[in-house]
Amino acid sequence: MDDRAVPLDAETKVAERPHDHKNELRLWLRLFTCKELIESEVRKHLRVDFQLTLPRFDLMAQLDRAHKGMTLGELSQRMMVTNGNVTGLVDRLVEQGVIDRRKSPEDRRAQIVSLTAEGRRLFRAMARANEQWIGEMFADLSNSDIETLLRLLAKAKLSVRAAIGAA
Amino acid sequence: MDDRAVPLDAETKVAERPHDHKNELRLWLRLFTCKELIESEVRKHLRVDFQLTLPRFDLMAQLDRAHKGMTLGELSQRMMVTNGNVTGLVDRLVEQGVIDRRKSPEDRRAQIVSLTAEGRRLFRAMARANEQWIGEMFADLSNSDIETLLRLLAKAKLSVRAAIGAA
Repeated sequence: MDDRAVPLDAETKVAERPHDHKNELRLWLRLFTCKELIESEVRKHLRVDFQLTLPRFDLMAQLDRAHKGMTLGELSQRMMVTNGNVTGLVDRLVEQGVIDRRKSPEDRRAQIVSLTAEGRRLFRAMARANEQWIGEMFADLSNSDIETLLRLLAKAKLSVRAAIGAA
Repeated sequence: MDDRAVPLDAETKVAERPHDHKNELRLWLRLFTCKELIESEVRKHLRVDFQLTLPRFDLMAQLDRAHKGMTLGELSQRMMVTNGNVTGLVDRLVEQGVIDRRKSPEDRRAQIVSLTAEGRRLFRAMARANEQWIGEMFADLSNSDIETLLRLLAKAKLSVRAAIGAA
């Protein structure tokens, strides 16, 4: 059997690298730092310009994509920022008048939440502002830098997914 | 006055771009997703292999760099993962025997925390394992991919910092 024909798993590939993984570690820390800087700036903008927290923005973003609304269970699964208290977030957004809650026609024990017309207008305004903030933060990157980062981070994501799947 | 001599601020640079910032937004979401995937895998490894949470690991990492220990205030400032309850984390790590706490010789009202010998051994073992996990997760990236990502993320970080400073 020819060893070279066997697909290498992540651990073998790592073990075959000549040295340590200091550069991979540096990459992880740099990625982490970039994410923290950007996220904290987005949080600040949301608070100052819209008096809204990031988890509430995230929840509204999920609902904006779901034109028929979502159950609380679906919402919890899809939230990017928090897997915390979705029920509490929903309560406060209902009070604010930006989402509403009704019984599911298919299952009367389940509740469907969706954006109100006002909520949709507010979310669209925030989404436009968010795109502008992010554009400003990445303003010193050229189009080619951005394309390269998109491509290599897609590759990194696949690599991470493969390692997680193999673990 | 020649307009071209004036350094452009981030907002002007963004306004001068021909279209929207969809690619920058995609880049931000991709970066976010990579960070979440990696962090959740690191959390899982820490829990399964070392029965430790990420904030505790982060706290020990800070102390590992400070050979004379740190005050609680310094620790809070430096923690990457959580700015939550440092006092509570310290209590639990003292109970575990991996850090100790003493009065500061300079200011008897301040407390200095540092790793115990056992804590330092444990942290070093976790740091080696962490480097290995990260190496496995990035195993499908070539050395040149990693160098490019390090370079472009450094550029992204500077760009974000400049935008934050200008805001």
